[in-house]
Amino acid sequence: MYKVAAIGGDGIGPEIVAEGKKVLEAAGERYRFDIDWTDFDIGADRYLATKKLLTEDDLAELKKFKAIYFGAIGDPRVPPGILEKGILLALRFSFDQYVNLRPIRLLEGVETPLANKTPKDIDFVVVRENTEDFYVGIGSRFKKHQKTELAVVRDLYNVKFGLDIETDAEELAYQIGVVTREGSRRVQTYAFDLATKRRKKLTSVDKANVLSDVYGLWRDVFTETAKKYPEVVTDFNFVDAVTMWFVKNPEWFDVVVTPNMFGDIITDLGAMIQGGLGLAPGGNINPKGTSMFEPIHGSAPKYKGMDVANPIATVWAGSLLLDHLGEHAAAAAVVSAIERSIKDGMVTKDLGGTVGTKKAGSYIADCVRRG
Amino acid sequence: MYKVAAIGGDGIGPEIVAEGKKVLEAAGERYRFDIDWTDFDIGADRYLATKKLLTEDDLAELKKFKAIYFGAIGDPRVPPGILEKGILLALRFSFDQYVNLRPIRLLEGVETPLANKTPKDIDFVVVRENTEDFYVGIGSRFKKHQKTELAVVRDLYNVKFGLDIETDAEELAYQIGVVTREGSRRVQTYAFDLATKRRKKLTSVDKANVLSDVYGLWRDVFTETAKKYPEVVTDFNFVDAVTMWFVKNPEWFDVVVTPNMFGDIITDLGAMIQGGLGLAPGGNINPKGTSMFEPIHGSAPKYKGMDVANPIATVWAGSLLLDHLGEHAAAAAVVSAIERSIKDGMVTKDLGGTVGTKKAGSYIADCVRRG
Ligand SMILES: CC(C)[C@H](C(=O)O)[C@@H](O)C(=O)O
Ligand SMILES: CC(C)[C@H](C(=O)O)[C@@H](O)C(=O)O
Repeated sequence: MYKVAAIGGDGIGPEIVAEGKKVLEAAGERYRFDIDWTDFDIGADRYLATKKLLTEDDLAELKKFKAIYFGAIGDPRVPPGILEKGILLALRFSFDQYVNLRPIRLLEGVETPLANKTPKDIDFVVVRENTEDFYVGIGSRFKKHQKTELAVVRDLYNVKFGLDIETDAEELAYQIGVVTREGSRRVQTYAFDLATKRRKKLTSVDKANVLSDVYGLWRDVFTETAKKYPEVVTDFNFVDAVTMWFVKNPEWFDVVVTPNMFGDIITDLGAMIQGGLGLAPGGNINPKGTSMFEPIHGSAPKYKGMDVANPIATVWAGSLLLDHLGEHAAAAAVVSAIERSIKDGMVTKDLGGTVGTKKAGSYIADCVRRG
Repeated sequence: MYKVAAIGGDGIGPEIVAEGKKVLEAAGERYRFDIDWTDFDIGADRYLATKKLLTEDDLAELKKFKAIYFGAIGDPRVPPGILEKGILLALRFSFDQYVNLRPIRLLEGVETPLANKTPKDIDFVVVRENTEDFYVGIGSRFKKHQKTELAVVRDLYNVKFGLDIETDAEELAYQIGVVTREGSRRVQTYAFDLATKRRKKLTSVDKANVLSDVYGLWRDVFTETAKKYPEVVTDFNFVDAVTMWFVKNPEWFDVVVTPNMFGDIITDLGAMIQGGLGLAPGGNINPKGTSMFEPIHGSAPKYKGMDVANPIATVWAGSLLLDHLGEHAAAAAVVSAIERSIKDGMVTKDLGGTVGTKKAGSYIADCVRRG
C-alpha cells in the first residue's frame, strides 16, 4: 500500500491526473499493490478565493508522503509568475527536490519534427538541477533616485556597465543566481549514477565561458566528481551549442546534467524533439524526502474540461512515480502500454487520433491490465 | 571609399575573413565603391606573446572605423572565457554595440534538419540585446569561512536557499544580471523599426514568470514601446517555449527580440535550423558608433589553415556590413551570389560540396562580379 498525494491544480490538470490515477491503479491490480490517494486542493481557484498559495499547513501535510502526483498550475486570471513561483517552484524548493529528471525519448509511432530521426536516435535523459541557479528568486528593481541600493550594487560588485547607470539608466533591475559546491555535487552525482546504469556517457551543459563565477564552480565540481566515475565518458557543451546538437545529433546524448535555468530551456526543446509537450514527463526528486511527478506542460486553460488534453505526459510521469516507489516492472509496463495506445491510434487529436482524454487514458489502463 | 577594420583572429578566422574581403571587393567593383582595409592583430597569438587582450590603444584605433569585419577568436592554449570575454565581449561592450542582429533564413538549396520545412518557412530575424543581462560579468566565488561577503549577500538580498548556506555550503558562487529601462528601450525600438519594414510581427522572448525582476522590467518596457507601433502585432514567448516553436513552427516568426543570454542560446538553435553554423552571420550594431560583423561560429582551431572551413557565414556577415554602410544593392547581391554558389554546388564539404575555402569564396566573388 502506497500513500500518494495528488494535486490536480488548474486548467486541464485535474482531468489528466484523473487519467494518470486510472493507469496507476491498473498497474496496481496487475502488480499487486494498492495506492491510497489523498487529494489536495491547491491552485488558482483557492488562491483567488483565499490568497493562499502553498501554505505551511499544505507543506506539513504533504511532507507525510513520499510522492506527489502533480497536474499543472497556471490561470489567465492570475498574473504570470504568481502561481508558478508560489506553488510549483515553492514545492520544488521546500522539499529540496534537487533532481529534475526528464527523459527525452521518441516513442515508437510518434512523429518528431526532425528529419531522418527514429526512436533509436532519440533516447536520453536530462538531469536538471532544481533548487539553485537563477531560480532562487533573488533580485530587485529600482529607480535611479533610490541611491542607496544602487550605490550598494555598484560599489559592492564593482559593477561595470556599458551605460553610466547613475546618469543614464532611469530604472534598473538585477537578478542574482547562486550555485553552491554541495548543490552541484549532489545533482551531478545523481547524474553519474544514472549514466553508469545506461550507456555510460554524461554531458555537462553550462556557459562557463561567460557566466564564469556560477558555472566555473559547477564545472570544477563536475571535473572532480568525474574522477570517481572513471567508467563514464564525459564532455562539456555550452548551452548555445547543445541546442544545436539536440536537433542535429540527438543520438550523441545519453545523460545530460545542467543547472536549473538551462535545464528549463533544453528540456522543452527535448520535449519537442520527442514529439511535443503532450508526451514529456518530469520527476522532481529528493531521494530522501518527498518527490513530485508531473507532465512538463502547463495547464492549457482554454482546453479545460473539454476532454481533449493528451494524458500521456501525465501517465508517463506516473511511470516515473512508480519507478521512484520501487515498482520497476509496473513502471515499465505503463510505458509499454503508452506505446501500445499510440500504435493502436487510441490517442488524442494532437497525435493524430480521434479519441478524447478519458478514452485515451482508459485505453492505456486497459493495456496495462491486459499486459 | 569606405575605411573598414579587419580582425581575423584565431583558428580559421583569418582564412574566412580573407574570403569575405574578396567578395566585398568584388561587390565594390560592381557597385562602384572602394574599401580600404586596416588589419588588426588581435587574438590568441598576441595574447600568448604579450598578455594583451583588447587594449586601450586597440580601442582608440578601432574607434575611427564605422565597421569592423571580425573572424573568430578561441584557442586551445587559452582557458575558456579569457579570449571570449577579453576580446569579443569587450568589443561589443566597449563600442556599446547594443544590437546583435542575427538573420535566420534557410537559403534555397540548403538542407535543414527539420522535416517538411522549406525556405519559405524559415525566414526571420533575431534581435539580441548585446550589452546587459547576465553578460555584464558581475559575480564572485567564495568559501563559507569568508563570512563578510556571505553575510552581505544573505542579508542584503534576503537570500533564501534550499540549503542553509552558512552550515552546508562549503563554497558558493553568485552571478548578477542587470537590465535597464534605457537598455531595453533602445534595442526593442530597433526591433520594432525592423518589424515595420518586414512582416510587422514582433515576438519578445523572456522568462518573466521566474526571473521576474530583470525580465519583468524588460516586459514592461516592451509593453510601453509597443504602444508607439500600433501596426506591429506583438506577442510574448517564454524562452523554453520558443525553442519548441523554432523547431515546430519557424514560419510563425518574423522579428524576435530578446535579452542577451537567451539571445545567445536561441540564435545558435536558429543557426542550426537554417542549415548549421557554417551559414549563420551576425552583426553587432551601434547605430551611431563602431559596429562589428562576424560569423556566429567559433574559430574551429583544428581546421586552421586546412582550406576546409565554410566561408559563407563570414561572407554573409560581409553583406550585413555592406547594408550597414548603406550599400543595400551590393548587400543583396552578395546574398544572391551565396545562393548561386550553393545551387551550383561550389561549396565546402559541410554543405555536401567538394571545393575548399578559397575556391568557395572566389566563386561567390565571381558571381557577385558577374551579377
Ligand atoms: C512553470 C515554470 C516555472 C517551470 C520552470 O521554469 O521550471 C516550467 O517551465 C518547467 O520547466 O517545469
Ligand atoms: C563566444 C561567446 C562569448 C559568444 C556569446 O556567448 O555571445 C558566442 O556564443 C556568440 O553567440 O556570439
